[in-house]
Amino acid sequence: MNSTHIVAGIGDDAAAFIPVPGRIQLLTTDMLIEGIHFNLQTTTPWQLGYKSIAVNLSDIAAMGGEPRHVVVSIALPQETSVEFVTELYAGMKSICGEFAVNIIGGDTVSSLQGVVINVAATGDVDQTLLQRRSGAVPGDLLVVTGTLGDSAGGLGLLSHPEGKNVACYDILTKRHLLPCPQVKAAGSLAAAGATSMNDVSDGLASEANEIAKASGVGLRIEEKQVPLSSELLQAAEYLGENAMQYALYGGEDYQLLFTISPENYRKLEKHSLGTSLTVIGEVIGSQTGVRLIDAAGNDSILEAKGYNHFR
Amino acid sequence: MNSTHIVAGIGDDAAAFIPVPGRIQLLTTDMLIEGIHFNLQTTTPWQLGYKSIAVNLSDIAAMGGEPRHVVVSIALPQETSVEFVTELYAGMKSICGEFAVNIIGGDTVSSLQGVVINVAATGDVDQTLLQRRSGAVPGDLLVVTGTLGDSAGGLGLLSHPEGKNVACYDILTKRHLLPCPQVKAAGSLAAAGATSMNDVSDGLASEANEIAKASGVGLRIEEKQVPLSSELLQAAEYLGENAMQYALYGGEDYQLLFTISPENYRKLEKHSLGTSLTVIGEVIGSQTGVRLIDAAGNDSILEAKGYNHFR
Repeated sequence: MNSTHIVAGIGDDAAAFIPVPGRIQLLTTDMLIEGIHFNLQTTTPWQLGYKSIAVNLSDIAAMGGEPRHVVVSIALPQETSVEFVTELYAGMKSICGEFAVNIIGGDTVSSLQGVVINVAATGDVDQTLLQRRSGAVPGDLLVVTGTLGDSAGGLGLLSHPEGKNVACYDILTKRHLLPCPQVKAAGSLAAAGATSMNDVSDGLASEANEIAKASGVGLRIEEKQVPLSSELLQAAEYLGENAMQYALYGGEDYQLLFTISPENYRKLEKHSLGTSLTVIGEVIGSQTGVRLIDAAGNDSILEAKGYNHFR
Repeated sequence: MNSTHIVAGIGDDAAAFIPVPGRIQLLTTDMLIEGIHFNLQTTTPWQLGYKSIAVNLSDIAAMGGEPRHVVVSIALPQETSVEFVTELYAGMKSICGEFAVNIIGGDTVSSLQGVVINVAATGDVDQTLLQRRSGAVPGDLLVVTGTLGDSAGGLGLLSHPEGKNVACYDILTKRHLLPCPQVKAAGSLAAAGATSMNDVSDGLASEANEIAKASGVGLRIEEKQVPLSSELLQAAEYLGENAMQYALYGGEDYQLLFTISPENYRKLEKHSLGTSLTVIGEVIGSQTGVRLIDAAGNDSILEAKGYNHFR
C-alpha cells in the first residue's frame, strides 16, 4: 500500500495525496452499467467489484504506469442487500490489495434501475517510460501478451444454457469475470523500449487500428500467429463459433498489444514478465491501415469494428 | 487552461499530466442519476453539464485547492439525441473554461434507462493550505459564504406547477441549476488561516456536524445569524415552507462553511473574496455536537439529517 502518501482518504470533500516527485500523473475512468456491461445472473458481486477495478488498472498499465489510487462511485437500487454491497467492496479491496492500490474516496447514491459502477484510477509513470499509442515506427514488431479471445469465449459459455458442461468453462469464464491487468508486464515492456502500447479492451482489430492511426503507420498481422488458447478452440467448437472472430472482435481480454524494435525485443528478458509474448506481425509503411494475412497468404483490410457497447 | 501540463488528453488508454511540483494532489468524484439528482423536465442538458462539473469543483475548493482536470463518464439511453449530447458537453466546457479546468478523458456508454453522469476531478493545493474538516479549535468563529437555502428554494419553485409566477423564480432556480463553486474564496480563506472547511452540499446541519465530529469539538450556531436571501424568504412564503428548514437541511448551496480564529477573521480582506461572509456561531468545547440557539435564546441539538439521496 502507498498509504504513506495519502494525506486525506475517504471522509473529506476530496481525497488528498502526495504524488511521487518527478513522475507523470495518469488518470482514467470507466463506467459499468448493469444489463449492458454485466449481468448479475452470471457474475457475483465480488467478481463485479474485482473487475470494475481491474479494467481501470489495465488502462493505467497500458500507459506504462503503476496504479496508485482509485475513487469509486456506485449507484444501487433501493432493494440492494447489505450482503451485495459487502461482497462488491470485498472484490474491490482484493484486487486493490494485489496491486497496492488504495480506495481513497467515492460516492454512493441510489439508482432507480440497476447497479451502476464508475471507477476513476490514478497512476504514475516516469516521463521517459510513458507509453502512447502514437510511437510505432516501420520495422517494429507487433506483439501481444497472453492469448486473445478467451474473455469472449468465456462470455459465450456464460450465456449458453449448457455452457457449464464444457471442460474449459472455469478457465474461460474466469478470464471474462476476473481479468488480470498486465501491470507488471507493462512496466517491463515500457522499460525495454516498447514504442506504443494499448490494452486489448475492444478486440485486436480495434486496438491495432488505434495504434496504426495514432502512429500514422500501417500494421501487418499474420492470422496464424494470433495466440489462441486450446480452451478457446474447444469452447468455440462447442458454441459453433469461430475462435479467431472472438480474438479479433471480442474484446475484454485486457492483454497488452505493443510495438517494439526487433533489437529491443531480442534483448527483452521474457521469463520475468509473468506472461507469454507472441509476435503477431510488424509495423509497415504509413497510411495503409491494418492488413490481416490469412493462413492461405491472402491479404485483407482489418476493420476497426469491435466490442463497443454504444453502437 | 493548464494545457501545457497535459501530456496525453482524450484518446489514449489514460490521460497523462505533469502535476504542479511540491503540491498535494486532490481527487474527488460525484455521480448524478436521472430521476434522483436531476429531472430533464426542469433542467436543460446545458445546465446539467454545467452542474455536473460544478459540484466536483466545489469539493476541490472545499479542500482549499485549485481544480485542474476532469474525466467524465456518461451513460445515455439509445434514444438520446445528438443535440442533447452537444448541449451537455457545451455546459461542461463552459464551466471548465471559467475555472481553467481541462476535460482530459472519459467514457461514454449506453444506458438501459435514464442518463447517468460521473465526473472525477483533480486539483492541487499547497501542503500548508490544505483544508480538512478536522482542524477547528474552541474559540474559532464559524463562518459561511453567501446565503443558504436558495438552492432548495429554487428546487421548490421548479417542482411547483406555478413556481414560474414568483418574482424570484429566475434567481433561485439559477442557484439550484447552476451553482457557482467558491474556488476563489476558498483559496483566499485557506491562505487567511481557516482551520476547517466544508462545502455546503448537504445542508448546514449536516456539514456543521461533520466539522464538529471530525474536529472533536462542539459548534454553537445562532439561528438568527444564518444568512437567508430576501428571495428565499419570498419563495418560502409562497410555497408555505420554512426558509430556515431549507437552509439547515436543503443542501446543494455549494457555499463554504469554515472555522477561523477571531484574529485571522479580523485580518481577512473580505472585499476581495467575491462573496459575502457571515459569522453564524463559534467553536466551543469538545463533545457537545452542534447546538442551535433560536431567536428566543432556546438551545437545542442540531441533528445531522440533511439532503441524502440514499436514505
